[in-house]
Amino acid sequence: MANAIVSQSGGPTGVINASLVGVIEEAQKQAKFEKLYGGVHAVSGIIKEEFVDLTNLSSDVLERVAASPSSALGSSRDKPDAEYCEKILAVLKKRDIRYFYYIGGNDSANTCYIINNMADDINFDLRAFHIPKTVDNDLLVTDHCPGFGTAGRFVACALMGDDLDNRALPGVKIDVIMGRHAGFLTGAAVLGKQRDDDGPHLVYLPERPVSMDKFLGDVEGVYKRLGRCVIAVSEGMCDADGKTWTEKVVEEEEKDAHGNIQLSGTGALADFLAGQIKGNLGVKRVRADTFGYLQRSFAGLQSPTDVEEARRCGREAVRLSMTEDNGSVAMKRTGNGDNYAVELFMTELANVAERTKSVPDEFINADGNGMTDAFVEYALPLTGSLPKTEYLGNNAKA
Amino acid sequence: MANAIVSQSGGPTGVINASLVGVIEEAQKQAKFEKLYGGVHAVSGIIKEEFVDLTNLSSDVLERVAASPSSALGSSRDKPDAEYCEKILAVLKKRDIRYFYYIGGNDSANTCYIINNMADDINFDLRAFHIPKTVDNDLLVTDHCPGFGTAGRFVACALMGDDLDNRALPGVKIDVIMGRHAGFLTGAAVLGKQRDDDGPHLVYLPERPVSMDKFLGDVEGVYKRLGRCVIAVSEGMCDADGKTWTEKVVEEEEKDAHGNIQLSGTGALADFLAGQIKGNLGVKRVRADTFGYLQRSFAGLQSPTDVEEARRCGREAVRLSMTEDNGSVAMKRTGNGDNYAVELFMTELANVAERTKSVPDEFINADGNGMTDAFVEYALPLTGSLPKTEYLGNNAKA
Repeated sequence: MANAIVSQSGGPTGVINASLVGVIEEAQKQAKFEKLYGGVHAVSGIIKEEFVDLTNLSSDVLERVAASPSSALGSSRDKPDAEYCEKILAVLKKRDIRYFYYIGGNDSANTCYIINNMADDINFDLRAFHIPKTVDNDLLVTDHCPGFGTAGRFVACALMGDDLDNRALPGVKIDVIMGRHAGFLTGAAVLGKQRDDDGPHLVYLPERPVSMDKFLGDVEGVYKRLGRCVIAVSEGMCDADGKTWTEKVVEEEEKDAHGNIQLSGTGALADFLAGQIKGNLGVKRVRADTFGYLQRSFAGLQSPTDVEEARRCGREAVRLSMTEDNGSVAMKRTGNGDNYAVELFMTELANVAERTKSVPDEFINADGNGMTDAFVEYALPLTGSLPKTEYLGNNAKA
Repeated sequence: MANAIVSQSGGPTGVINASLVGVIEEAQKQAKFEKLYGGVHAVSGIIKEEFVDLTNLSSDVLERVAASPSSALGSSRDKPDAEYCEKILAVLKKRDIRYFYYIGGNDSANTCYIINNMADDINFDLRAFHIPKTVDNDLLVTDHCPGFGTAGRFVACALMGDDLDNRALPGVKIDVIMGRHAGFLTGAAVLGKQRDDDGPHLVYLPERPVSMDKFLGDVEGVYKRLGRCVIAVSEGMCDADGKTWTEKVVEEEEKDAHGNIQLSGTGALADFLAGQIKGNLGVKRVRADTFGYLQRSFAGLQSPTDVEEARRCGREAVRLSMTEDNGSVAMKRTGNGDNYAVELFMTELANVAERTKSVPDEFINADGNGMTDAFVEYALPLTGSLPKTEYLGNNAKA
């Protein structure tokens, strides 16, 4: 008999709690565990021994947890260094915790890796497993990440509604979407497109730097053709020199700043781009929204595929830990379209910890301002099928 | 036999298309109509005779329309004056259109009123009916407005997720919600609260001006007590002198402006309030989101009650027009809670056209920074039941 701990790190998602429930329900099956601790607020709580007892949670509670957005155990942005990890290890030893399950991004895989190596060094038998989560979908090895499908579903539904709104009251609309380095989530903006002239008409990812001239030319082209234009922009959108537009805007503003107010807040990029379009293209109605936290934590909206896979990943980590010493759970796609399916497998922690993934070239169009069919084939099974909509106002010739 | 027209005006909502479908399906039942026109882009399209033929739409199409957000016929922000209305009337005469159904807010009721009077003056037998819609819920006479329940559901689900996100990564979070003059939609932020310490912890409506000192004092109080604070703010939030904070921020910025960039965009109020909290209270993690267009046009999220009532209102307008000359459809609540029900009735166009409604005093707490139980009893049946959530990280004493 031994104790185990599970914890959640980094930015919350809509299904990180499903992975937590997967760990808890599989741990309940394993006669091996005396206690399953929940480490509150990730590593920052673990070093202070802020623990809750998850050993005997009822299935009612577990189902509600699995359906809840955000991280039910709390989270932390701390990236532990060696000294920090030693403190964690000391707590694990003190409590005789021999199984460590950590749900998070590549930094969390790295934390598992460091702690597991430290435990080896002192001959403390610890099994450390990483369970992937991120709305950014940027982890290596795995086909995709739990969390992306649900956030992608939110973004797709938002753009579907927003494009219809922009048909009703035409103009240029900019939507700024999360993802500083990887554009998968911004790409999900296209997944609900049904008609040839549906928006978003332009999509800008961090992977494809774009000059202001090119951007304005793109917008003008769509606006002249359709009389409106919906644009999905990653918060990590870059100028041609590779520097993000957000950085440039903030720098520019700081140079000019005299008052207390600085355009470095939530709407900075959106407002800057809207100002450029108004000023340079003379479009009268330009609107901009920044989606913010809604896209990662919204109650009652989960991708059915995503929530099921997240839970499976949690269970798999516990199962793997019965026979293996350490690893990260990953998914391999074994079928697509109507036959979509994944198999779970284990990869080395180091494979996930080191770097992150960008949107592959074949998912981005040649012009660098839109997504390909290959991307839709990749991403649509992850968000689940999207609502069908109607617009009646075209061809008003009756 | 006569012709009829239906059109949609003002800001789109999640169920204005359900009202449109109500009109179409009831008109299909009435043998009286030769043609049912859809006037595209409201009055701005009607004067240009931009019409689609809605007479024989299939039930498949109608169901997809009813489920689609935004205005399927397009919309317009034009507020017609007498000259504009004469142009409209000329088109109606030319096409022998004797029934005019207009879905919109109080300005749309006013348009119906003017056109109906003009028709009377020239002895043109026209029946003009207004069907209520607005996410702001600010129309007089009716208990509530189609559109509010669905937007309120979005806001409630957003705040539920956002509050859990703020538990996971604690700090101060500000959410700016639509409603320049009426705070109903901002009030809907509280509807998903389940635990005593659930956010939003503070709610600011246009109906209760608040000084910066009072605002900062409120935030500090909650933050000291809970270590976090979630705040729902109406875009029409006012300073103690009754002027909106947004106006003040823009004025201040224009005074200081040297560059091209002005803090007058989408995130202005949110960023300003975040800056005040950071600067004056020394809170490290302060985040702010402005919900923007998502709250009125998001695909796949409707309140079941709202969508049904919106459709009933559309049908009722057609039924009323069989015997009455003009009017606006309104709802009377005949039961609440588990027995929630409404009856539809007709009110004079002038009763709806003239002014708008504010949140009544009994819905706002004494301190002017939160909603009462009476508000929740009023609003919760309109959004429909909300998801249940769990948070496990409190009382970390295991």
